[in-house]
Amino acid sequence: MAATLPDPDRIWTAGLVIIGDEILSGRTHDKNIAQIASWLQVQGIRLSEVRVVPDVEARIVAAVNEMRAAYDYLFTTGGIGPTHDDITVDAVAAALGVAVIVHPQAHAILEAYYADKGGLNEGRLRMARAPEGAELIPNRRSGAPGLKIGNVYVMAGVPSITAGMLDALTGQLEGGKPLISRTLGGFIPESEVAALLREVEKAHANCQIGSYPFFREGKVGANFVIRSTDEGELAQCTDALSAGLSELGYDCTPGGI
Amino acid sequence: MAATLPDPDRIWTAGLVIIGDEILSGRTHDKNIAQIASWLQVQGIRLSEVRVVPDVEARIVAAVNEMRAAYDYLFTTGGIGPTHDDITVDAVAAALGVAVIVHPQAHAILEAYYADKGGLNEGRLRMARAPEGAELIPNRRSGAPGLKIGNVYVMAGVPSITAGMLDALTGQLEGGKPLISRTLGGFIPESEVAALLREVEKAHANCQIGSYPFFREGKVGANFVIRSTDEGELAQCTDALSAGLSELGYDCTPGGI
Repeated sequence: MAATLPDPDRIWTAGLVIIGDEILSGRTHDKNIAQIASWLQVQGIRLSEVRVVPDVEARIVAAVNEMRAAYDYLFTTGGIGPTHDDITVDAVAAALGVAVIVHPQAHAILEAYYADKGGLNEGRLRMARAPEGAELIPNRRSGAPGLKIGNVYVMAGVPSITAGMLDALTGQLEGGKPLISRTLGGFIPESEVAALLREVEKAHANCQIGSYPFFREGKVGANFVIRSTDEGELAQCTDALSAGLSELGYDCTPGGI
Repeated sequence: MAATLPDPDRIWTAGLVIIGDEILSGRTHDKNIAQIASWLQVQGIRLSEVRVVPDVEARIVAAVNEMRAAYDYLFTTGGIGPTHDDITVDAVAAALGVAVIVHPQAHAILEAYYADKGGLNEGRLRMARAPEGAELIPNRRSGAPGLKIGNVYVMAGVPSITAGMLDALTGQLEGGKPLISRTLGGFIPESEVAALLREVEKAHANCQIGSYPFFREGKVGANFVIRSTDEGELAQCTDALSAGLSELGYDCTPGGI
């Protein structure tokens, strides 16, 4: 009998739904994409898609249902506070076809947190609501917890609170080999080295090379990011690119500029 | 015979597809969402959805086709440079079912731009490629133009270049009444005033109130953003909220804190 062994090369994926009119209006600059993307990398999980949707239940439901089916994990940020525009719990419950309940543990946490701050009121009680069957994600910062139900992780919108929730989840999610990267950067016009980049990538099957141009100090330049799950192949590919750039007469700085 | 008049209350919408492994890896912090969202507001167009997708043609094609059908305008950023990972032109052409051609005007622009920089090469020629039928969006910064085809606007990924392309498009896109906003902010726990926010919003049908909490100087606070297309109703709603906060004993600062 052949036992089913886990695939060490399996790629684990995640989607992210950012719920927030304030992002779509341009008022607030999003910080959660980069924060969650970086955290997922360390967990060996690749962020495969992000959607930013408005505070409209049907839009949240559609995004949650498409993306929780498409990826191993789905994260949401935003809309779990005490005010009328915080509708994420209702939307996630609707997406999963479960009821919204008052979560006893969340209720107890909030009761303790607000004991010396005027006690619970209608708005604060909203933050004890959860889709039936959800577990809590601790939030040491402000009392109100995040939620996990199935493969859906419901997080805060305020980046510092999200950071605390990610901290609580560190090491809890199964992932694969992390994608590691090295960077070479310089005042190199990418249009001068496009052929080299393509050839070096082609010669190293398990590596991808990304080219990220910039304008700085009145000069064009680029950072070339080499990514792989294999440390050895990553080093070989990086060396080959560095040598190739040198042959073309360009200095590059390991780590990027 | 009744003539068909344009609807002055029509809401014009846009979607945005951000094409970039560098955003999904957490390496680069996106700046284009806020930049494009703010610009669209001034044009009287609402950004209704953003998707961040990887540099994978099938994923770009799917996002472009879903979103160009769902919204009046679709913007893309990223993937129009000279390197092998710049595949946006091919993906947009595939989405629209048209061929990729060398655009004569783009070719001429690039030839002139690179005349004293070593001339055109294979990588630089990639930036003259366009979906058949596309018009150019000027880019005074680096030569390589953006593209407009149907309701799809293909923009650069580097934010300063995107800014130049937006500038070239200012006043060119039909929009509706801009959504205007006022902000009241203070060290006010939103959970203390949730009921007030809901009641004031309910009493002003053409206004929405968003509540955006923060932690600062060790204290909780929030900015309340009131949005409307009508200046008079916006002022009334803002005054009502300000008076309500005052009744509850909270000072608030117009413009937010």
